[in-house]
Amino acid sequence: MLKVNEKAYQLVNILLDDAENYGVFAEETKSGATLIDVGIKAQGGFLTGKIITEICLGGYGKVDVFPASYDGFVLPSVFVQTDHPTIATLGSQFAGWHIKAEGYSAIGSGPARALALKPKALYEEIQYKDHADLGVLVLETSKAPPDKVIQQISEKCNIKTSRLTIILVPTSSLAGFIQVSGRIVETGLHKLRKLGLDPRVVEYAWGYAPIVPLHPKFDEAMGRTNDAILYTGMAHYIVSYDNDKELERIVNMAPSSASKWMQEARKLKKNSPSFLEILKEAEYDFYKIDPNMFAPAIVVVNNKKTGKIFQAGSFDFEVLKTSLKLG
Amino acid sequence: MLKVNEKAYQLVNILLDDAENYGVFAEETKSGATLIDVGIKAQGGFLTGKIITEICLGGYGKVDVFPASYDGFVLPSVFVQTDHPTIATLGSQFAGWHIKAEGYSAIGSGPARALALKPKALYEEIQYKDHADLGVLVLETSKAPPDKVIQQISEKCNIKTSRLTIILVPTSSLAGFIQVSGRIVETGLHKLRKLGLDPRVVEYAWGYAPIVPLHPKFDEAMGRTNDAILYTGMAHYIVSYDNDKELERIVNMAPSSASKWMQEARKLKKNSPSFLEILKEAEYDFYKIDPNMFAPAIVVVNNKKTGKIFQAGSFDFEVLKTSLKLG
Amino acid sequence: MLKVNEKAYQLVNILLDDAENYGVFAEETKSGATLIDVGIKAQGGFLTGKIITEICLGGYGKVDVFPASYDGFVLPSVFVQTDHPTIATLGSQFAGWHIKAEGYSAIGSGPARALALKPKALYEEIQYKDHADLGVLVLETSKAPPDKVIQQISEKCNIKTSRLTIILVPTSSLAGFIQVSGRIVETGLHKLRKLGLDPRVVEYAWGYAPIVPLHPKFDEAMGRTNDAILYTGMAHYIVSYDNDKELERIVNMAPSSASKWMQEARKLKKNSPSFLEILKEAEYDFYKIDPNMFAPAIVVVNNKKTGKIFQAGSFDFEVLKTSLKLG
Repeated sequence: MLKVNEKAYQLVNILLDDAENYGVFAEETKSGATLIDVGIKAQGGFLTGKIITEICLGGYGKVDVFPASYDGFVLPSVFVQTDHPTIATLGSQFAGWHIKAEGYSAIGSGPARALALKPKALYEEIQYKDHADLGVLVLETSKAPPDKVIQQISEKCNIKTSRLTIILVPTSSLAGFIQVSGRIVETGLHKLRKLGLDPRVVEYAWGYAPIVPLHPKFDEAMGRTNDAILYTGMAHYIVSYDNDKELERIVNMAPSSASKWMQEARKLKKNSPSFLEILKEAEYDFYKIDPNMFAPAIVVVNNKKTGKIFQAGSFDFEVLKTSLKLG
Repeated sequence: MLKVNEKAYQLVNILLDDAENYGVFAEETKSGATLIDVGIKAQGGFLTGKIITEICLGGYGKVDVFPASYDGFVLPSVFVQTDHPTIATLGSQFAGWHIKAEGYSAIGSGPARALALKPKALYEEIQYKDHADLGVLVLETSKAPPDKVIQQISEKCNIKTSRLTIILVPTSSLAGFIQVSGRIVETGLHKLRKLGLDPRVVEYAWGYAPIVPLHPKFDEAMGRTNDAILYTGMAHYIVSYDNDKELERIVNMAPSSASKWMQEARKLKKNSPSFLEILKEAEYDFYKIDPNMFAPAIVVVNNKKTGKIFQAGSFDFEVLKTSLKLG
Repeated sequence: MLKVNEKAYQLVNILLDDAENYGVFAEETKSGATLIDVGIKAQGGFLTGKIITEICLGGYGKVDVFPASYDGFVLPSVFVQTDHPTIATLGSQFAGWHIKAEGYSAIGSGPARALALKPKALYEEIQYKDHADLGVLVLETSKAPPDKVIQQISEKCNIKTSRLTIILVPTSSLAGFIQVSGRIVETGLHKLRKLGLDPRVVEYAWGYAPIVPLHPKFDEAMGRTNDAILYTGMAHYIVSYDNDKELERIVNMAPSSASKWMQEARKLKKNSPSFLEILKEAEYDFYKIDPNMFAPAIVVVNNKKTGKIFQAGSFDFEVLKTSLKLG
């Protein structure tokens, strides 16, 4: 059995042992938990973004940053490989734990979810549960959680508070931008699952998406990082599946461009809408947005049982260029 | 002196220490040898493919997987660098040991060849022989060798059976696909040697080829992985050589497209034949195929003695697309 | 505080522990210093080039080699990432120490500069000084320094001679070619600084440039490696700055093509001059060349305070092709 918390904790130790290089600050809370700031007061960076993305994947994925050309504009890009896609992405990386208590609110991801089983239905579906006496949680936030919330988290994880590590990643930090683009494989697998594919048939996966230029404002930062995935991200899955017809149907519906909203938006105007425009249209209510839109621009599936390859979607560099206000 | 078996064994230990992540199973045979399954019952994966390719290179090459675009179709690709090209590829990685005994048959590659000197003429030519009390052999097979064969292998290597590690890689597994594409530098160096270049003048080398989508059938799998090298693989050598004219002549004959078969095939039909078509034409007899065809699509040589650069061949994306039945 | 010498020394130990693989020779001088030859009699290689570039960056940068296409011609390329750009590049990697004594002359770079404060004005400007009882210096040279010079170096560094490591890298060696292309981020930051940007506002940086084919002659080698940066290198900086207008003005002047010499050269002839042609025109006097020419082909700056992106310059593949006498 894979042990996402223990494996991720090895990476936490690497991060802390070289804290100055990674530009992170660690502090112990009153209750004994370890908080690691990777972008609030801390500087973070490219290396930090890489390692926290690997931590988020429960240590069962490899993340590399390399330069890729997007219609002539070169951006550093996150390349994710995993040989345990279901557990690493749905069982760990997926932002599936909404921490909301004591006036504090943040989205949690990473291996500790597999201790608290958040959400439970997903863990039942993928038949995974981690057993560990330590836990690692990643919060997308600019604010440390209060002590009471930390204690509640460790209770849900069934671990001592002193054995809990929480990594704090602001949305608009460089580490934050990297860890969002690093969700490219997870975003696609989540969509495939919603379309009816049992995620356990996915044996290997990889994907990449650009690390887009930073923006200090929350909405703009969220807009840019989502554009990175929706319009210029690609995910590739190797599956073992009995029904190629069904597989083809699912893949065709998988890319962001296959969502109803996107198709209607394209009817209305010449160009695809940027995520910020979509957000505006949804009156800045994230939950009003068509959830089918959250998917890579391109989804490819190779069925190792038949050798078939199915590909759907395409890159839309214009949105990236408009979103970044490039020439 | 380089020690390919000891160096590779360090990587074997890394593989075994993290067996769950790499998706491999190790077992001890009756005679005490270690068998590592990386794709028969075992799952293997991208990371596994990378590390067994490095093991095959005797630990003296670096393998990275990165995404590359092949006329718009992006595939993860194997990038190989070696600063010891002759020993790492010809002295270790080359599939030069045909194990055939007790009704068992498999092609062996990797560092143990440098103990058993298989084939002897090649080792005399490159003036290399490894001395070690342990050996690592890679077999492209879907079946473990019987105990008697294992004992024969260790005898030829002049090591105790308990000090022999055999890695079993099926042709149609993901690790298998990666280790074949990872032979891009070796394939080109082998061809240059057959064309008359003393391999010892090659000081540094690198190359890359795509990891093509999996296929469960042996012939189709072999077809795809060979297409990856013959039509979309590139190898680059930095040599120290006295005769630029001779070098240019050799390089021009080096790429797969320079082989007679390929040139005749091109005369007959518009497009280049896929390797599967070539295999069919050869009535599925591998040894009937023009051996000059086994070479990278593009071969580049830089002579550090004169600064000259010679390049021959070109990519043929159409074959890849037809072979994969893409768009 | 970052400790460039100690951090780099960890990499020196990795280099020496695997000296055979890296193809380097180490020897102890009479005075007890360690000299590491990575390309005079030693063979060096791709891996060696990577690690000495990381040593040059004081251990605070990551260097990867990957293949990139330059208008169809694929070359291995150096990708540099640093989350400490000012200290890693200006405070360590910059070739700012001219060693000239006892008839010996060589340009020194790397972490030991931060002990000897060479040049002092730069260290005052960036407010950095390393304190260490050991030092690591990189000399671009084909000749070991005499013992008296070694003693003078250790005195300037205020360390015992036995605690000094000097790495000798010839210009025309493969390791030398890699470490020059690996200066892409430093070259751009140096130019931005000369144009008036306080380097300390630069928070993260990355860049890449090709490793061009080797040439045995000093002038041609220098020509090729400079072309790599001036015409096909790209650097990208993430800054925190209050004045976007001023930033835009600086970025527009930053690429090599914005220098007066280059602009005049372009008026006179259709194509841009290769660095070798520039050198000839300057009568082979390096110091006569317009210093503004030393910059990446493309410079991109992202202001994280406003989200703005400024880009100037473009690749000029023709120069590379002419310089390499390709197609």
